Formats: sequence, C-alpha cells, structure tokens
Amino acid sequence: MSVTDELLTNNAQYARDFSGPLPLPPSRNVAVVACMDARLNVYGMLGLREGEAHVIRNAGGVVTDDVIRSLVISQRLLGTEEIILIHHTDCGMLTFSDDEFRQSIQQEVGIKPPWAAEAFADLEGDVRQSIARIANSPFVPKADGVRGFVFDVSSGELNEV
Amino acid sequence: MSVTDELLTNNAQYARDFSGPLPLPPSRNVAVVACMDARLNVYGMLGLREGEAHVIRNAGGVVTDDVIRSLVISQRLLGTEEIILIHHTDCGMLTFSDDEFRQSIQQEVGIKPPWAAEAFADLEGDVRQSIARIANSPFVPKADGVRGFVFDVSSGELNEV
Repeated sequence: MSVTDELLTNNAQYARDFSGPLPLPPSRNVAVVACMDARLNVYGMLGLREGEAHVIRNAGGVVTDDVIRSLVISQRLLGTEEIILIHHTDCGMLTFSDDEFRQSIQQEVGIKPPWAAEAFADLEGDVRQSIARIANSPFVPKADGVRGFVFDVSSGELNEV
Repeated sequence: MSVTDELLTNNAQYARDFSGPLPLPPSRNVAVVACMDARLNVYGMLGLREGEAHVIRNAGGVVTDDVIRSLVISQRLLGTEEIILIHHTDCGMLTFSDDEFRQSIQQEVGIKPPWAAEAFADLEGDVRQSIARIANSPFVPKADGVRGFVFDVSSGELNEV
C-alpha cells in the first residue's frame, strides 16, 4: 500500500465529518505565502479554518513570478487584502547554493535547469527580499498589507521580521 | 486590529502546545501539490501531521516551472518519492480566461503581465495536463509516483482522475 493510498483512507474519514460547501472567496481576506516544509502546518500555526485564507506554498516560501501570479489572482479576483509571508528556521534552502544545485543536475541529466533554485544564505534577508518583490510588482494592487515572519520549528512561534 | 494580528494571537496558543523540532525531511516521503483555495485544508483532508509531507500550493494547483523547482528540491534534496496533485470543484480558475485577465490588468496599470494566468476550462483535463508536465520534465527524478485528484468542496472527498 503506497503512502498515497494510506492518505486516501484518511480522506474518507475527513469526508464523513465534512460540512460544505463554503463560499469561494476567503472569508478573512488574507493570503499566506509559506515554505513547503513538512513541519509547517499553516492552518494549525495560524488557527485557520476551512474557507478563511488562501495558502500559497513553494520551496522556501520565496516570492517568485508564480507567487506573484497567485497573489494577483487572490487580490484582484477574490478580494484578499493582507499578505502573510512565512519562512522558517532550519530551512533546506539555507543548505546549498543555486550554482551547485543546478550544476549537479546538469552533470546528472545533461541539462541545466533554466530557472534559479532560489536558495538563500540569510533567512531574514530573504523575507525582506520577498517583501521587496511584492512591493516592486506593478500587478499586486494591495502591497501595503504585507508582513513577513520566521516560524521557529523548535518553539512553534512566528517572529516578525 | 488587522486579521494578521488576530492570527498571530492564534499562533501564541499553537506555540504553547507545540513540541518540536522534528527532522527536516518529510517522514512520509510525499509531496502534495494543491490549489491555494481557502476551502482546501490539505493537512485535514489527508490526515497529515507536522513533519510528514511537503505541501506546494498556488492558484489552481497547476504545475508551473515554480512547482517543478519545488518538486525537484523536494525529491533530490529531501527524499520524497510520491506526488499527490489536487485540483477542486468550484475553482476560481474556471471562471475567467488568460486573455481577459491579462488584458484587464493591462488596461488598469498599463503593463500586460509577462506570465500566463494558467486559467483552465476543464478541471480533469488540467489535472492530466499537470501530470503530463511532471512526466515531461527532465529534472524530476521520480515522475512515476504521480497521482491526480479533484477535491469535492461539497463532500470533502478526493476523487482520482
């Protein structure tokens, strides 16, 4: 039995207790951008419930063009107004460099990825970089309500940058 | 008091009950790619707990280059082997076209976004498109273990495509 099959068994239990559908637009008008890290339970750490907030996640919680795309759709079409950025301690993105990662892939498969890995050496610096990318985008209408945090994987606390 | 401040109050409660830190690599070796939609509680619907799975989310749950980047880091550096793709019924991405979205932004701010919005007209077709993009990437080492689902926002059920 694959892990996917085991998780589908959990879904059957979830569906038994489920009451829906809720409206499409997030009821608390907030979008969260967080790292994909397995230790980040975004609903849990913010006390969110179904229907309240958009949650956007990728490797690092870095604001890439795809995050800008998602935020633009979130704000322009679905009315969100605040943005919460979440990086975290002990992040995998602190453990390698873009150059070595892309070169190792090139050596193995013969093709260097045409995208940056978006690794970073400075956790709080990358939160500020992500805030700056949002502020600099002409497409995100409400860039004022952005706040950035580092989640502490030891304590469960969010600390503002 | 902003919504962000209210959610930070919830975080203080979460941190009081928190026990960490857990290891960095996902213990169940799985990565989930899901839509950012507020009604998708990924931990809840799959019965996931902290530390078990990478969770990648964007507008639509579409496999973009940034999702490929995240999956490559997830598999190559952190050992995940299975991928679960989750789109859902009543998705906002079904309600507009790329052309009209990008033109409306151009009319308002004077610049047409240089990226596609990734809207789609066919839910199951876009799940298959996302699976095909992973299969076609030379950078994702384990593309065999991909399965795609549509989450039903009325019933809470995941239905395999």
